[in-house]
Amino acid sequence: MRPHVTALTLGVRDVAAARRFYIDGLGWDPLFEQAGEIFFVQIAQGQMLGLWNVVSMRSEYGDVGHNDGGPAIPVSLGQNVASPGDVDDLIAEALAAGATLVSAARSQPWDGYSGCFADPDGYRWDIVYNPGFRIDDDGAVHLGAAG
Amino acid sequence: MRPHVTALTLGVRDVAAARRFYIDGLGWDPLFEQAGEIFFVQIAQGQMLGLWNVVSMRSEYGDVGHNDGGPAIPVSLGQNVASPGDVDDLIAEALAAGATLVSAARSQPWDGYSGCFADPDGYRWDIVYNPGFRIDDDGAVHLGAAG
Repeated sequence: MRPHVTALTLGVRDVAAARRFYIDGLGWDPLFEQAGEIFFVQIAQGQMLGLWNVVSMRSEYGDVGHNDGGPAIPVSLGQNVASPGDVDDLIAEALAAGATLVSAARSQPWDGYSGCFADPDGYRWDIVYNPGFRIDDDGAVHLGAAG
Repeated sequence: MRPHVTALTLGVRDVAAARRFYIDGLGWDPLFEQAGEIFFVQIAQGQMLGLWNVVSMRSEYGDVGHNDGGPAIPVSLGQNVASPGDVDDLIAEALAAGATLVSAARSQPWDGYSGCFADPDGYRWDIVYNPGFRIDDDGAVHLGAAG
């Protein structure tokens, strides 16, 4: 099995609320959508993110739970950016679009700077400046100064 | 905020068990690792997957829960493949590496063929043949015959 993820799917309680955040709020373009059921956006080269009605999701993925006001789902989506200022700007943009602040941006022990917000379903987004992170022209990712 | 996810992080109870599945079992290459704490593999152009000790994860992502034998986490990682036979082959490979079958591969109402397995922490992987899915040379994703 090649390590190539072409789709990431998150179960959401309210597809319309997720759409308001990602499409209307952040301004992303839907690739495909069925109202109230699912929509997809492209989030990397060759990869889409699906926001799917969590009730329907059980038809394919078995007994999956969901945020019910207790602990959040232990998953984060991350965006590495070019500077600490970009971290601050992105988090401000997401909060303006309806996100909730989880961890205010701060310097990290691994020499970076990052902060975390949650989308309307509590999914964590980690906005990160990491001086050791690099993407080559061919898409190869490197972590750490020696990478 | 650009729709570019550079990292996806999943909280796991046992990093060594996750490592046995992804690195030893599926044969993926670690980009970076700290034993018992976290490891990263590349899963798309410009994107890495992190498997992180869920206890440590709470330091950045707040009160996140985890699989405790109840309903699974409502998230799936997907790999689109070129044929129904590839779906069967990939699922067999994952089961041999220690995955658990969630939904046996079958024809789907959207004209495709797919099945689902779970990794050692219960994270769903959806292996999909969808004749309407296409990735262009520039990485653009299309869904549906008209895409």
